[in-house]
Amino acid sequence: MTAILADHGYGKAGIRVGDVHRSGAEHRIRDLTVRTTLTGRFEDSYFTGDNSTVLPTDSQKNAVQAHAAGDFGDIEDLAAALTAYFVDSQDVVEGACVHIEERAWQAVDVDGKPAPDCFQAVPDLVRLARAERDAAGVRITSGLRGLRLFKSAGSEFHGFRRDRYTTLAEATDRVLVTEVQASWTRAGDPTDWAAAHREVRRHLTEAFAETHSLALQQTLFAMGERVIEHVRDVASIKLTLPNQHHIPIDLAPFGVAPAADVFTVLDEPYGVIEGTVTRGPDNRDLKDRT
Amino acid sequence: MTAILADHGYGKAGIRVGDVHRSGAEHRIRDLTVRTTLTGRFEDSYFTGDNSTVLPTDSQKNAVQAHAAGDFGDIEDLAAALTAYFVDSQDVVEGACVHIEERAWQAVDVDGKPAPDCFQAVPDLVRLARAERDAAGVRITSGLRGLRLFKSAGSEFHGFRRDRYTTLAEATDRVLVTEVQASWTRAGDPTDWAAAHREVRRHLTEAFAETHSLALQQTLFAMGERVIEHVRDVASIKLTLPNQHHIPIDLAPFGVAPAADVFTVLDEPYGVIEGTVTRGPDNRDLKDRT
Amino acid sequence: MTAILADHGYGKAGIRVGDVHRSGAEHRIRDLTVRTTLTGRFEDSYFTGDNSTVLPTDSQKNAVQAHAAGDFGDIEDLAAALTAYFVDSQDVVEGACVHIEERAWQAVDVDGKPAPDCFQAVPDLVRLARAERDAAGVRITSGLRGLRLFKSAGSEFHGFRRDRYTTLAEATDRVLVTEVQASWTRAGDPTDWAAAHREVRRHLTEAFAETHSLALQQTLFAMGERVIEHVRDVASIKLTLPNQHHIPIDLAPFGVAPAADVFTVLDEPYGVIEGTVTRGPDNRDLKDRT
Amino acid sequence: MTAILADHGYGKAGIRVGDVHRSGAEHRIRDLTVRTTLTGRFEDSYFTGDNSTVLPTDSQKNAVQAHAAGDFGDIEDLAAALTAYFVDSQDVVEGACVHIEERAWQAVDVDGKPAPDCFQAVPDLVRLARAERDAAGVRITSGLRGLRLFKSAGSEFHGFRRDRYTTLAEATDRVLVTEVQASWTRAGDPTDWAAAHREVRRHLTEAFAETHSLALQQTLFAMGERVIEHVRDVASIKLTLPNQHHIPIDLAPFGVAPAADVFTVLDEPYGVIEGTVTRGPDNRDLKDRT
Repeated sequence: MTAILADHGYGKAGIRVGDVHRSGAEHRIRDLTVRTTLTGRFEDSYFTGDNSTVLPTDSQKNAVQAHAAGDFGDIEDLAAALTAYFVDSQDVVEGACVHIEERAWQAVDVDGKPAPDCFQAVPDLVRLARAERDAAGVRITSGLRGLRLFKSAGSEFHGFRRDRYTTLAEATDRVLVTEVQASWTRAGDPTDWAAAHREVRRHLTEAFAETHSLALQQTLFAMGERVIEHVRDVASIKLTLPNQHHIPIDLAPFGVAPAADVFTVLDEPYGVIEGTVTRGPDNRDLKDRT
Repeated sequence: MTAILADHGYGKAGIRVGDVHRSGAEHRIRDLTVRTTLTGRFEDSYFTGDNSTVLPTDSQKNAVQAHAAGDFGDIEDLAAALTAYFVDSQDVVEGACVHIEERAWQAVDVDGKPAPDCFQAVPDLVRLARAERDAAGVRITSGLRGLRLFKSAGSEFHGFRRDRYTTLAEATDRVLVTEVQASWTRAGDPTDWAAAHREVRRHLTEAFAETHSLALQQTLFAMGERVIEHVRDVASIKLTLPNQHHIPIDLAPFGVAPAADVFTVLDEPYGVIEGTVTRGPDNRDLKDRT
Repeated sequence: MTAILADHGYGKAGIRVGDVHRSGAEHRIRDLTVRTTLTGRFEDSYFTGDNSTVLPTDSQKNAVQAHAAGDFGDIEDLAAALTAYFVDSQDVVEGACVHIEERAWQAVDVDGKPAPDCFQAVPDLVRLARAERDAAGVRITSGLRGLRLFKSAGSEFHGFRRDRYTTLAEATDRVLVTEVQASWTRAGDPTDWAAAHREVRRHLTEAFAETHSLALQQTLFAMGERVIEHVRDVASIKLTLPNQHHIPIDLAPFGVAPAADVFTVLDEPYGVIEGTVTRGPDNRDLKDRT
Repeated sequence: MTAILADHGYGKAGIRVGDVHRSGAEHRIRDLTVRTTLTGRFEDSYFTGDNSTVLPTDSQKNAVQAHAAGDFGDIEDLAAALTAYFVDSQDVVEGACVHIEERAWQAVDVDGKPAPDCFQAVPDLVRLARAERDAAGVRITSGLRGLRLFKSAGSEFHGFRRDRYTTLAEATDRVLVTEVQASWTRAGDPTDWAAAHREVRRHLTEAFAETHSLALQQTLFAMGERVIEHVRDVASIKLTLPNQHHIPIDLAPFGVAPAADVFTVLDEPYGVIEGTVTRGPDNRDLKDRT
């Protein structure tokens, strides 16, 4: 009998970095959480505890913090640079993956003008970047999470399939609430990741708002299609849309004449709709997608 | 030997209510989480399980949802109305406390204009209200939480007391990061709770930004003082300010010439500075506060 | 107009301490999370940033860790010793409160025998202690949290009061699920806190199991009464019992002959039943509690 | 330009089910959280909102609850049965994945004997099962999470690789703390999933305790190897071991003679060591693993 070591790797998670740029008249802050993973020829550490090929996870943390101290550009650039450092500097490292979350802060207003050195958190704006590097090169993914959207009209769900367990009523007028998770790749040799991020976020939001929804699936595809149409170099976008159910409350037993529609909000269970929308060749018909 | 029932009460927590107002051209949504607590003559339920004085927590939830369906005004008004309902309608109920959190949503922009029926969550804007009612009447408290602020200049901490365990270095230039929790009461017969809330929030933020801080304690008092000075009917404000420590990272060992000051962000441990600032009589000197 | 500083204080939260006792043949580990709060004559720090009376929260953390390195006994003893240190060593400190949580670990079994130096976490065993000291002396509270209990028979709820919002059905056979939070004080000059903790935990659990419940209120009082009867020096015990609702699922529409009763488990909303049971004079009748 | 729908699917998450078996003298409870995902020919829903191929996520929830009401055996059996139901009953469903978590409860002791109808949660015992079914058949994975282990002796880390960012000191005597996440597959036509789970858990724990660790990587492989050696039909086991750092506190500045080694416990950052150990052919040498 033999035990074989198959896939393996190691790294550091939860590396928190706060950057404060104070050289200009207006300060700027960056708030990052980083995770690194290295793959390579580390078998001896697993077999015998010979660590001569193991770069400590503490060193990986230090490398992250040192790189974050420079003018690194966007988090996509930082993630790519870190993977290059790990792979290029250590012959035993064959692959590296760096995942970064950036939380946004904006200048607070004082007497109607933005303060130069005081900021408040903008918790819904979480940017994501991931760089994966191996012998074939580097692949960069951008993303976002935490964008909660609520559509109070223009949402239906009916005509669905039924099985012996189906009790759901058809809905011709429901509210639709989700929290967008998105990740996308860009073709060519992309730059200006922040501008692309803003564009993707804008089109996702506008498509959610403007689509008359017959299913969250339909809304999802409309969101992805809109991004593909409007953000020229996005090659593919993956969307995960939880469906946070809002259950109408029947007020009739209470003899109340309501001024608003009232819902119970459920955290669990929740639907999950997923899909990846990719850019096809120009000469295909839009509806001919198989 | 005798076992005596001292303070006791019961209620419902985690009552989630979503209100959707769709009568006008522009919809409006409210997102509430409510907790109720009743006190009164419920001893028989504790002693023998005789529930004839016990209004079920499920009924309390229904009452909350039915009241939330009306044009209730601000959450302070809703909390007060609910306590009145419980105390007035049930002779055995001697006191009621209702606590409400409201999370904000704002209309999303589509082509630069706010959509009439689509909203995104604004997670840093959490309003709080609490009404406590007993035989003496009702006391209403407003509040906020979740406001994270970061001051990148104008913060020092030195000249502090030392004991045998003191190793902290003095700081003449540090960053100051907190998440404001505030609750306040208003004098007289206050109305327009939302406007007061906006004013309190604005003055807390501006005072944090404008105070050159020699201690978070000093910043706290400046914030409270500013509110007392500018929001005429605030009688008292309680502030809890965690101090989220940002530890400077020494990059010297790495031979890096940094473009930014880099910090490790700690979630634990954290300082907690608390204080209540109240309005005194007009003829007292501002610095004569004992 | 005058702004007055009323109640105020400061301290350190989230102080994590791991103790490893390795002097004996069998190691022992302690896993503590501590919070300190000091009150006293700190006004100048709030008014002007004069910190000469302010012992840094970092020093408080160091004091906690240094005291935790000794043979401190139980967490109640440690909390008391720390408050004594703060009040006695600093003339400006008039009061101190120290709150400690201890999470349990037990030796893992290897070949059926406990390992001397390897442990696994026992997450449901969370002990709490709090010491509050001021000029009048010290008050010590013990507690526990995280004890989830599920009673699958012997629970009813009916005969309750009804209002216009009551729609709840009466239940003569329901399941009862809670997560016990308890805190208690002991009379006299108590010692051996760990043994008392085990006794209180045992009697709370047994009373929950043995009480035929007509209301969670009744169960609560039975639990407190049992502790008062059996743990001789407990003076008072406060219990908070959430009622985690389990809603029976109607399987009739599906034509299923179930092998078990099936419930949907709700995290929100949940009932909250609270009560404090205290020890009365010996000559009072048990049911004469007002 | 064409937008193409690539991978897509949908389902329900956070389905909570409580089962109470009350037919015997001793009750038994099951506490499940289930997630379903279906893949298949749902494109029309994404493209046009034609939902005629979409089985609602609400129906999936009902199917889960109905199946959970039967004598389903182990959670691996339930997951497999549910995937079979979805794929077999709906021609448009081509694949199904069902993931189940089961939290353990054990009978409480009353007077030293287990109660027939009262239970307490055992929060560290979380069992996982996942069934994935497509045209090629079903693949079942078992797993666990939440097992926190602490080794107070027999752990070193030195001889590691150094780069320009390495500042970590070598350790010849450190503590090692992790929280085991494991998932494994079994060969042949396995039955009695619960017994296999107990065996895997026992061997993981014993290997962690007995391995003198020169690296958490080494411990990981020893744990996987032990399972492969002792649990005959385990084909492969994937382990993820976070390294929760415990930083020794230097008490020298405080003049304290400690009774214990004292550590600061960090939640972030943390190391993550991963690896999959698989069963090889019998005639290979144990150290010849490539």
